[in-house]
Amino acid sequence: MEGRESAKTAGKPIRCRAAVARKAGEPLVIEEVIVAPPEAHEVRIRVICTSLCHSDITFWKLKDPPGYFPRILGHEAIGVVESIGEDVDGVTEGDTVIPIFLPDCGECVDCKSTKSNLCSKLPFEVSPWTHRDKTSRFTDLKGETLYHFIYVSSFSEYTVVDIAHVVKIDPAVPANRACLLSCGVSTGVGAAWRTANVEAGSSVAIFGLGAIGLAVAEGARLCGASRIIGVDVNSDKFEIGKKFGVTDFVNPASCKDKSVSEVIMDITGGGADYCFECVGMASVVHEAFACCRKGWGKTIVVGVDKPGAQLSFSSSEVLHSGKTLTGSLFGGLKPKSDIPILIKRYMDKELQLDEFVTHEVSFEDINKAFDLLIEGKSLRCVIWMNR
Amino acid sequence: MEGRESAKTAGKPIRCRAAVARKAGEPLVIEEVIVAPPEAHEVRIRVICTSLCHSDITFWKLKDPPGYFPRILGHEAIGVVESIGEDVDGVTEGDTVIPIFLPDCGECVDCKSTKSNLCSKLPFEVSPWTHRDKTSRFTDLKGETLYHFIYVSSFSEYTVVDIAHVVKIDPAVPANRACLLSCGVSTGVGAAWRTANVEAGSSVAIFGLGAIGLAVAEGARLCGASRIIGVDVNSDKFEIGKKFGVTDFVNPASCKDKSVSEVIMDITGGGADYCFECVGMASVVHEAFACCRKGWGKTIVVGVDKPGAQLSFSSSEVLHSGKTLTGSLFGGLKPKSDIPILIKRYMDKELQLDEFVTHEVSFEDINKAFDLLIEGKSLRCVIWMNR
Repeated sequence: MEGRESAKTAGKPIRCRAAVARKAGEPLVIEEVIVAPPEAHEVRIRVICTSLCHSDITFWKLKDPPGYFPRILGHEAIGVVESIGEDVDGVTEGDTVIPIFLPDCGECVDCKSTKSNLCSKLPFEVSPWTHRDKTSRFTDLKGETLYHFIYVSSFSEYTVVDIAHVVKIDPAVPANRACLLSCGVSTGVGAAWRTANVEAGSSVAIFGLGAIGLAVAEGARLCGASRIIGVDVNSDKFEIGKKFGVTDFVNPASCKDKSVSEVIMDITGGGADYCFECVGMASVVHEAFACCRKGWGKTIVVGVDKPGAQLSFSSSEVLHSGKTLTGSLFGGLKPKSDIPILIKRYMDKELQLDEFVTHEVSFEDINKAFDLLIEGKSLRCVIWMNR
Repeated sequence: MEGRESAKTAGKPIRCRAAVARKAGEPLVIEEVIVAPPEAHEVRIRVICTSLCHSDITFWKLKDPPGYFPRILGHEAIGVVESIGEDVDGVTEGDTVIPIFLPDCGECVDCKSTKSNLCSKLPFEVSPWTHRDKTSRFTDLKGETLYHFIYVSSFSEYTVVDIAHVVKIDPAVPANRACLLSCGVSTGVGAAWRTANVEAGSSVAIFGLGAIGLAVAEGARLCGASRIIGVDVNSDKFEIGKKFGVTDFVNPASCKDKSVSEVIMDITGGGADYCFECVGMASVVHEAFACCRKGWGKTIVVGVDKPGAQLSFSSSEVLHSGKTLTGSLFGGLKPKSDIPILIKRYMDKELQLDEFVTHEVSFEDINKAFDLLIEGKSLRCVIWMNR
C-alpha cells in the first residue's frame, strides 16, 4: 500500500540512497542523501527503476557549466508518487508516474496547441535546479547542496519533480519497460511519428543506430514506412536494426568512392523522404540533408551536437530543392498526452520496448551501466533501485 | 483570327523583332531575329506583353556563366500560340498562354504528387538552351545563335517554349495583369499559400518589400493572416505594403540598439509564425530564422542569394527550437494547375494584381524598364510588344 508509505513520510525530509556524481568523469558514489518534501507544484517520487541515457554521460563528463557537481544525474525513470506538494492536480500518492525532462504545463499557448511540444510557461533549460524556484531538494549528510539534472534526477531512491514534468501512466506496464519512454525511445519514436509524421510507404534514412536511431526505426515501422535505411559505422547494427524494421544498411566505411548520401540516393532512386540525424555531428546533418528527396524531403535533427556547433547549407540548394530542415526535441511528443498512447501501444503489442533492454543491474552496480553504454555494449541498461 | 496568323507562318521560320542582350550590363539592342518553328513538344508563341523581373537583371549583369551572350532574356509574359510542334497536347493555335520558367511535365512522380512542384523528368536548370534537346530556336540575321533564358525568352515578338513550360489560361484576363503571374507575383503569393500554407489568424514577417515580398503579403492576406510585418530599408514601402495587407513595418535603420529579429519578437510576443526572406542575403535569412516562433515557426527562403552563399544555423537552436527552414521555388506552385486558380481569383476580384503594375512601356523603350527597376522606381513594368 503506497498510501501507508506516504503517511509516514509526507511533509518530512527522507533519508535515502542516491548515486552522486561528485566530480566530472569519476565513478558515481552511492551515499545517503536528504530529499526535502515537495513544495508547491511538486511531487516526491519513489523511483522504482531508471535507465541510462547518453545525455547522462555527456553531462557527467562536463567539467564546466552546464556540468555542475556534486549532482544527482538520471532522467529516464519510473516511480510511485510518495507525496505531493500544494497546487498539484492530476496525480496523488500511490500513482505510477514517469518523469519527463520536457515540461508540459497544460496551460500555455504551446501546451494547448497541437503544433508545439515546447512549453512556453516553463521553458526547458539545462538547469541544475528545480524548475520554478531555482533551488534544490537534495542535500548530502554534511548539508551540502546537491544539484538537480534536467528536472528529474532519478539516480536516487527518492526524487522531487515538478508536476509539469510528471506523466501518470497505467501501473500495469512493467517498470523496466515504461522507464524507457521517459526519454530515449520516446524521442526516437516521436521523431518519426510526431515531428516527421512519416507516411505509409515512404522511405526513411537513419544516421546512427544507437538506441535513439533504432527507436526512430521503430517509429517509422509503426508509421508504415516501406524502406528504412540504417547508417552506422558498426555493421553489427544491421542485425539489431532488423528487429526494428531496418531494411537496408550502409556502413560509411564500405562506400568506396561514393559518399553515404550518394549511396542512399542510389538505394532510394532519388533520395529518402525522411532523413534523421541521430549522431549529433554537423557533417552528418549535411549528409542527411544531401540525400533527402528533392521536392519534399525532410531532414530531422535529433542528435545533440557539441555546444556552439553550426549547421551550414548552400542557400541555392535550400531554395531550389524544396527540402525542409527541422529539429525534434523529445521527438515532438507532448508528454502528458502522447506518452500514455505509447504505453498503450506497448501493452497492445504494437510498440516494441523489450528489445531495447540489453542489460539490467542493481543500483549498487550503476557504474557498470555507465561502462556498458560507453563501450557501446548496451542499448538500454535498466538500473533497479531496490532489487 | 489567330488561326489565320498560324496558317501563314506554321512550319516556317519567323523574322521578327527581339531585344537582344549582346553584352553583360549593356543596353539591350532591338534587332530583327529569326525564330525557328517549334520542334516536338514545343509551341511557338506570339508574345503580347512581358514584364520585367529582377532575375532578368541579375543574368543580364553576369559576365560569366550562367551569364551567356548574345541572349534573349525575359521570362514573365503572356502570348498567343502561333503554331505547335509534334507531340503537343493541351494547347493549340490561338490559345492564350503564359510561359513559366518552371516545368510541369504532368507525367513524373513529382508532377503527379501534390507535395512537389519540382518536375523530375525535366529538372529546372539555368540553361541557355531549349529544355529537351539543348539547342536554340533563335538566330540573328548573320546566322549567329542567340541563347535562350530559363526556357522562356520573352523579350521577342515570337518565342519557342517547351509545352512543359506553357500554361493555358482564360483569354478574358487582361494581358498586362496575367503576365505578372508568369513569375514574380506567383512566386510571392505561392510562397505564402502553397509552401508555407499560412493559416488564418497567424503572424507573418516579410523581409524585403519588393514585388516578391509584397506578393507574399498579398498571399498571406488571402490566407487570412492577421498580422503581416514588412521589413525594408525604404520606409516608403510601408504605405505601398498596406495595399497588400501589411499591418506593421520595421526599418532596420530605426531599430536602435535592437536587432530586427528582436523587434519582431516584441511585436509578435514571441516570434512570427511564418518568416519569408525575399532579399536573397544569408544574414537576412538568419534574422528571419531568429524571429520565427519557437515551437512551430517556419522560415521560408524565397530570395535568390549570390552563387556559393551559405546559410549557417546553430545546431542546438535547430534542435531545441522546433523551427523549420525550407525554400520556395516559384512559390511551391504547380504551374498548370495553380496558375489558372490564381487567374480565376483575380477575375473574381480576390487576388490583387493591378497594384503591382507601376509602369508600362512600349517594346522600343525596354531599356527604360530596366532603369526603372534598377533605380527601385517600379514594382512591375509591363513591356508591350506591339502597342
